[in-house]
Amino acid sequence: MSTLDLPAPYPWPEGKTSAFCFTMDVDAHSPWMWNNRHEVPQLLSHLEQRNFGPRVGIRRIAAILKDLGVKGSFYVPGAVAEAHPWMLPALIEAGHEVGLHGYFHELVAQVSDEEFSRVLDSSLEIFRRQTGETPKGFRSPAWEMTPHMLAEVKRHGFYDSSLMGLDTPHTVDGVVEVPVNWGTDDAIFFKFLGGGDPAPRSPAEILGMWSEEFEASHRFGSLFMLTVHDWISGRGARPVMLESLLEKVLAKGDVWVATVAEVAAHHAAHAMERDQITSHIPETLLEHPAWTRT
Amino acid sequence: MSTLDLPAPYPWPEGKTSAFCFTMDVDAHSPWMWNNRHEVPQLLSHLEQRNFGPRVGIRRIAAILKDLGVKGSFYVPGAVAEAHPWMLPALIEAGHEVGLHGYFHELVAQVSDEEFSRVLDSSLEIFRRQTGETPKGFRSPAWEMTPHMLAEVKRHGFYDSSLMGLDTPHTVDGVVEVPVNWGTDDAIFFKFLGGGDPAPRSPAEILGMWSEEFEASHRFGSLFMLTVHDWISGRGARPVMLESLLEKVLAKGDVWVATVAEVAAHHAAHAMERDQITSHIPETLLEHPAWTRT
Amino acid sequence: MSTLDLPAPYPWPEGKTSAFCFTMDVDAHSPWMWNNRHEVPQLLSHLEQRNFGPRVGIRRIAAILKDLGVKGSFYVPGAVAEAHPWMLPALIEAGHEVGLHGYFHELVAQVSDEEFSRVLDSSLEIFRRQTGETPKGFRSPAWEMTPHMLAEVKRHGFYDSSLMGLDTPHTVDGVVEVPVNWGTDDAIFFKFLGGGDPAPRSPAEILGMWSEEFEASHRFGSLFMLTVHDWISGRGARPVMLESLLEKVLAKGDVWVATVAEVAAHHAAHAMERDQITSHIPETLLEHPAWTRT
Amino acid sequence: MSTLDLPAPYPWPEGKTSAFCFTMDVDAHSPWMWNNRHEVPQLLSHLEQRNFGPRVGIRRIAAILKDLGVKGSFYVPGAVAEAHPWMLPALIEAGHEVGLHGYFHELVAQVSDEEFSRVLDSSLEIFRRQTGETPKGFRSPAWEMTPHMLAEVKRHGFYDSSLMGLDTPHTVDGVVEVPVNWGTDDAIFFKFLGGGDPAPRSPAEILGMWSEEFEASHRFGSLFMLTVHDWISGRGARPVMLESLLEKVLAKGDVWVATVAEVAAHHAAHAMERDQITSHIPETLLEHPAWTRT
Repeated sequence: MSTLDLPAPYPWPEGKTSAFCFTMDVDAHSPWMWNNRHEVPQLLSHLEQRNFGPRVGIRRIAAILKDLGVKGSFYVPGAVAEAHPWMLPALIEAGHEVGLHGYFHELVAQVSDEEFSRVLDSSLEIFRRQTGETPKGFRSPAWEMTPHMLAEVKRHGFYDSSLMGLDTPHTVDGVVEVPVNWGTDDAIFFKFLGGGDPAPRSPAEILGMWSEEFEASHRFGSLFMLTVHDWISGRGARPVMLESLLEKVLAKGDVWVATVAEVAAHHAAHAMERDQITSHIPETLLEHPAWTRT
Repeated sequence: MSTLDLPAPYPWPEGKTSAFCFTMDVDAHSPWMWNNRHEVPQLLSHLEQRNFGPRVGIRRIAAILKDLGVKGSFYVPGAVAEAHPWMLPALIEAGHEVGLHGYFHELVAQVSDEEFSRVLDSSLEIFRRQTGETPKGFRSPAWEMTPHMLAEVKRHGFYDSSLMGLDTPHTVDGVVEVPVNWGTDDAIFFKFLGGGDPAPRSPAEILGMWSEEFEASHRFGSLFMLTVHDWISGRGARPVMLESLLEKVLAKGDVWVATVAEVAAHHAAHAMERDQITSHIPETLLEHPAWTRT
Repeated sequence: MSTLDLPAPYPWPEGKTSAFCFTMDVDAHSPWMWNNRHEVPQLLSHLEQRNFGPRVGIRRIAAILKDLGVKGSFYVPGAVAEAHPWMLPALIEAGHEVGLHGYFHELVAQVSDEEFSRVLDSSLEIFRRQTGETPKGFRSPAWEMTPHMLAEVKRHGFYDSSLMGLDTPHTVDGVVEVPVNWGTDDAIFFKFLGGGDPAPRSPAEILGMWSEEFEASHRFGSLFMLTVHDWISGRGARPVMLESLLEKVLAKGDVWVATVAEVAAHHAAHAMERDQITSHIPETLLEHPAWTRT
Repeated sequence: MSTLDLPAPYPWPEGKTSAFCFTMDVDAHSPWMWNNRHEVPQLLSHLEQRNFGPRVGIRRIAAILKDLGVKGSFYVPGAVAEAHPWMLPALIEAGHEVGLHGYFHELVAQVSDEEFSRVLDSSLEIFRRQTGETPKGFRSPAWEMTPHMLAEVKRHGFYDSSLMGLDTPHTVDGVVEVPVNWGTDDAIFFKFLGGGDPAPRSPAEILGMWSEEFEASHRFGSLFMLTVHDWISGRGARPVMLESLLEKVLAKGDVWVATVAEVAAHHAAHAMERDQITSHIPETLLEHPAWTRT
């Protein structure tokens, strides 16, 4: 058998051909807090744009999910739960999953291992206090991970949803990974806070692009992981575009529409043996024999 | 009631479903003056591109507004009114609103509170001198605001049209806010002065995008705030595109097409009690217990 | 009469409604020479991409112009004429206009007035030596101009084609200006030399965009100034796209298709009295009373 | 004869009108190694995105090539062959060509001549060890070349496929050059690793663009050199898009679909006399008489 051959299809439940997750990273003002942690500017523009998310955006999208009967996974930074204490309980009451997403949307490359662990505990505490429950999953701010973070996620028994080494569930260092995908993230196409940012793409173009992605995901039997943000996709014509995409997905029939926690539980129960990846960071090439030999 | 529920629709006048404002930020050469305030280059390219606005661009768009019977709101920096003394009187004579937009398009983050207040007075003076009237509204250059600016705008009794924390009228620190929207601003899609700027998008694509935005705005009962610039949307095929957009808006029927001053007056008279926002800038997270606890 | 009224239509010859110029800035390797003037890298990638222009690109486009019977204006840096001595005579033999475009595509903001004048003489010398004729017009590298340059262009009796303060012919400091337009320049949409440059747009999209521009230009009675580059628009599907655009222009009927020299001569003979602009560079606002008053 | 005339058509074999090569630069994690050679970050995001290529991407594309009966040319950095020792043998077994592409995807401008030669030997060694064969061709990482590299490529008797001075095969310094083309490279349209990268374009748009390029390539009798990357075009809807493009190419009939080695061999045997280019790097213009004369 040539190793160019395709692997066996991923075993989705109930004979489904592919899977689909709707997720929202409810960042709101938290990245602003992180970016301005050393000096707080007296400027309102970015804050107000971001506050649109909890005030309006999340509601417009939640109403569409409710109409269509879709349950999603909402990753909420601790600082957002703290500023909007109605949010976690309301999401759970509506049947959605809530998961961890840092406290201040702190960027991985800018915090120490010790700081990460400490702030993860703070996030967990506020989730438990506000909901009476322990969340099942973690999604890293800006989708970066380190071996230390994976070890911490494993210690807590969470799944992770931050990496993209495969487009079906797998494990990394023994943690169930439900992979994300830049191609189906709203921020890279729509995020715009002001001068210097690239102008947003049209919802019609991205609907076309995500429809193509969905057809390909179904053909290849993989997971379509949609990620949107409260203040980005909650504005303008984007909720309408999301509605159109969800209608296409639901109309397909043999797609498993599930929360990320449900996908992670399925993987843990039925497919833990396949695609076990060990995080491996290559050493510097400057000590590699191909570079240094004399 | 779950706090994920949508709020009650905004009470537009005469039972209209949504609203539409046509606005122009008549920047012309004023940002060039600001950007080059410390050293003036002997270069003509940018200046001539910007001068196209008062020479040609504003006229082509004004002719289309006149044909369609649309009254707009024109925000004119003091330096532009000074260089083109015909402009404010001609706009008023044609039935449009004129409003404040800084003197040299000075960027908020680059001026002190004292400088802001001083230059606001200069702008007001030239408006009164040229038109015999006091303008009703203020729009911040580059759409940035501070608590100090809001206090100044309130002291003068102006409305503001610079923030985007909601997509319907509201108040911020007691000032009536008629919100703007990057998604319906021409500059982020079309502005191009030369090497290094991202290339302009096609008018056809943006017409499609703004038509989608308009349909969504109507569905959600919000305000479609269109913002164009004299030297940007006055050039090439863009006035024709604006004409097509306005025709769609006018054909819809139950959309309230109004000046920003009319929208602000309506809000002050009929909806002052809803959506009262207090500007609140979070303190540094470094003093937050979630970050610093030991 | 309100000054918001549109001016009288530009008086094109023979009752034509609008005008169209096909121009090529034959930069080839000359910007590479300028960018690397202080240190020459031993790298071939950019040079070979640029050499494609004189080897192939200019020929593919010239063949299309010949088929359609369109005469264009080709602005050739001195260094390009020097490296390809067949070029100027061959262009003239084919009925095209040739014009000045710097010697090494030197950027205006990076040369002194004295250097500009000296290098302009070198360019003129090589044109006279290779063609036996004095060119009629000047186009500035990267479309920048200074009052000094305009004075030099006037001293030589050239027209200029570098600014965009109007979209019909006019004068600046007494020099006939046949204006350019970033929106109908190929480089901003297609130029790509390697890592870091924004990816090129599709010829189909730009054909749509330029077709819109052409219809608007015709509606407003202005000049459609198309500018392409040998190594950019001579590659891939772009010559085919140019052919499609030219076919649309020719099919319109009442468009004056002319060289830039012909347009300049027409303006000098029939419309010199209108739109006389004096270059005026505002002084620093820091000495403006609105900024400094106490 | 005017030198603006088009040259004689390239002599493709069997009376074919144009040619088409499918190539993959199998970069996987090797550029990550090069970029982080001085300090290795403990971050997994980019590595996992790149590892998707050898795990999944190359397989999905290889399956499509197999279905359509297309043989491609795969340029594999030494470090990728070393990390995935199944890859070179599996590609050869499937009938594809394998070629050299650096060891760590080292960028030309960042290595000395001596380092280039030394690392080229390392690459060659691993190819010979894993396949028992000597590869026929070289493609430079990031498509940069120097006169030294050409001399080394010539010493080994390889063809090169890295430059774009023509769009048909030719020679540079006596080395057969099968030219590449940024316009038909996937990375410039799709590559996205995270924050700061421009967002990817839609596969539908690029399929349209490449179809236009293909029609033009056929009209002008040139070579369509398609270049994709394992971890970029192997993801999402892009393999499906490649399938659609290949179906168009195969349906055309008189296109020669060949590996790069086959094209290079054809050129060496039948067209060596035409288009012989000598690498020539101009000296600094500061010593040019047009610049320095007094």
